[in-house]
Amino acid sequence: MSTKSMAKLTDQEAMNLAIAEAKKGYGWVEPNPPVGCVILDKDRNLIATGYHGKFGKSHAEIEALKKVKNKKLLDGAHMFITLEPCSHFGKTPPCAVQLATLPFGSVTFGRVDPNPAVKGKGSLILRSSGMKAIKYKGDRTELDKLHDMFCYSYENTSTFVTIKIASSIDGQMALKSGESQWITCEESRLFAHELRARHGAVLVGRGTLNIDDPYLNVRHPKFKKFRGENKVVVIDPDGSILNNIQKYKISNYRSKKNIFVVTSNKIKSNNKHCQHISVSLKGKYLDLGQLKKTLFLNGIQSVLVEGGPLTVSQFLEQNEANKLCLFMSPSILGAKGGMSWTSELAIKKLSQKIALQNSTYEAIGSDILLTSYFKGAFS
Amino acid sequence: MSTKSMAKLTDQEAMNLAIAEAKKGYGWVEPNPPVGCVILDKDRNLIATGYHGKFGKSHAEIEALKKVKNKKLLDGAHMFITLEPCSHFGKTPPCAVQLATLPFGSVTFGRVDPNPAVKGKGSLILRSSGMKAIKYKGDRTELDKLHDMFCYSYENTSTFVTIKIASSIDGQMALKSGESQWITCEESRLFAHELRARHGAVLVGRGTLNIDDPYLNVRHPKFKKFRGENKVVVIDPDGSILNNIQKYKISNYRSKKNIFVVTSNKIKSNNKHCQHISVSLKGKYLDLGQLKKTLFLNGIQSVLVEGGPLTVSQFLEQNEANKLCLFMSPSILGAKGGMSWTSELAIKKLSQKIALQNSTYEAIGSDILLTSYFKGAFS
Repeated sequence: MSTKSMAKLTDQEAMNLAIAEAKKGYGWVEPNPPVGCVILDKDRNLIATGYHGKFGKSHAEIEALKKVKNKKLLDGAHMFITLEPCSHFGKTPPCAVQLATLPFGSVTFGRVDPNPAVKGKGSLILRSSGMKAIKYKGDRTELDKLHDMFCYSYENTSTFVTIKIASSIDGQMALKSGESQWITCEESRLFAHELRARHGAVLVGRGTLNIDDPYLNVRHPKFKKFRGENKVVVIDPDGSILNNIQKYKISNYRSKKNIFVVTSNKIKSNNKHCQHISVSLKGKYLDLGQLKKTLFLNGIQSVLVEGGPLTVSQFLEQNEANKLCLFMSPSILGAKGGMSWTSELAIKKLSQKIALQNSTYEAIGSDILLTSYFKGAFS
Repeated sequence: MSTKSMAKLTDQEAMNLAIAEAKKGYGWVEPNPPVGCVILDKDRNLIATGYHGKFGKSHAEIEALKKVKNKKLLDGAHMFITLEPCSHFGKTPPCAVQLATLPFGSVTFGRVDPNPAVKGKGSLILRSSGMKAIKYKGDRTELDKLHDMFCYSYENTSTFVTIKIASSIDGQMALKSGESQWITCEESRLFAHELRARHGAVLVGRGTLNIDDPYLNVRHPKFKKFRGENKVVVIDPDGSILNNIQKYKISNYRSKKNIFVVTSNKIKSNNKHCQHISVSLKGKYLDLGQLKKTLFLNGIQSVLVEGGPLTVSQFLEQNEANKLCLFMSPSILGAKGGMSWTSELAIKKLSQKIALQNSTYEAIGSDILLTSYFKGAFS
């Protein structure tokens, strides 16, 4: 790459580029975070980009460094990473140690790593070798979004919860008559499979299993080859399907270690076809805060909640939802004969309305996808 | 304007620019259509733009021509107009006659004027004087949207109906408890007043008067000085408020010629405080197709329907809605305690869902505005 034709990049431009790089790893890197890296030479010309491309493979910093053939360009160079470089031997050697040996002018990282095994240590390693390690001072909204699941789960030792909804523009998911048919377009449905790939597990209520009996697997050409079978979490407070879980389609192509059935802690079971998790009751429903903590301890960093209305409403009511992905089709079903995705949610005063923040809207085929965060999603 | 520094414009670029110009007249020109005009010199350099700025004032073509100081530039020039130039003496002399005397190379217009007094005559005048008058051959979607109300109403001799809704992202307008409070942001509410300015009248059901007793006037700094009082249409099938209409706030600052109360044709009245319109019943409700025809004959080219749910649902059920402006706030109210904007609408099969088309989404403050058209809105 000729540097002469390149424009000099500001910190913000470099970090935005690193964020764009990071996103290329979506769906491949979990439970690692998606991370992107940009290297500018000492005159701030772009010389390399890189991203973490797959769980277990080399990190973004190393990928970017590989691309710099003329190592002289690293003299006084500036590296931008979306996340603090790692400091522990995981699947790969610690990046911070490798970076510390290089003649960089500075290393700027977007977020401190929330993982207690890494937090602050990466930058400490750099600084103790005399490297200028800088926490990015620009707007962090896009960094917060990029690392939403990873940061939330480690900071709260709790699973990050994304609610996924497909509805008409008047908020209906289906008809009360029970008639079922896709409401959203093909592109939306495909992207919903990508969302499954990006999350540690898919979560549904037992009603969804009884009504639709879905596979809940990842059906997406992009994630065909490399992603293993995904995890499923089924909410089953009174254990009514716990002992029959092997009869549902989720058990067809999925080993029992990837099937989690959650009941109240009053339910005992010897079922050998799934992982049985139990949590306390909170009123008539399960304590979802406790469930999130338990799932995190079971290695599930994030779940994609795919309904139905009771399950969704409970996450909203208990303030345990973190993110909403709402696919809206430009159609009207009518609330009188329809089933609203918040049909089980009631607030008493308008001041109690659930406000969302950091919303983005994007066109997906003929639909619109709203992505929003609930209060407390970012630290 | 120096033409040397200008890029040469394609037909599409010129027409898009004319459309952007036309929009500057929104809210000022009704019941005229918003019209924009662009003039390129013989080498296709931009030399002038213009738009129809106010009802009764000069048309877009004339505004653009005024800006060309060096009349030699008009030799072989190319004019682009969003609508066929007018051919009749209205508030201003016919544009087609004036254009016919000029040494243009071509005049391209986006849409044929649907007004029977003009239709095809404008281009005929141009052609009979030897001018090359061309109907624009590019994509007409944006032209259709620009002239939506004007074209529909003249082509169907029927009032164009826009439904305006403010809701949460789960489709709720308010709470069942009756508690009322703004759901959408200040910018959305301001733009809703602009929408009132753009329409011939605001339409509500009598329930809205009984519950909220709103003024329904245009409160917008931009339209303060020049817009007169706007018209209001109240749907009152059994005439229950017809004889008390003077007691509602809509009558406070509005003369009776601008207040239309619509009842079934079984209701007789001698009320002197409004215009009484009556139409046939269609089932239990009024025949809205007939109403639209009647309103058009009363000089109302377009109405902005501002609810409530019964009125909105009836327009949807009778397929008499043409456009939807849905302001959505990034908040959740819950359907269990909320009032959905389609609470009175039921469809029996998903195949009967109401599909919308030509949707656009735009950010308005913290909200999103979806603008969509119903089937049949464009000819």
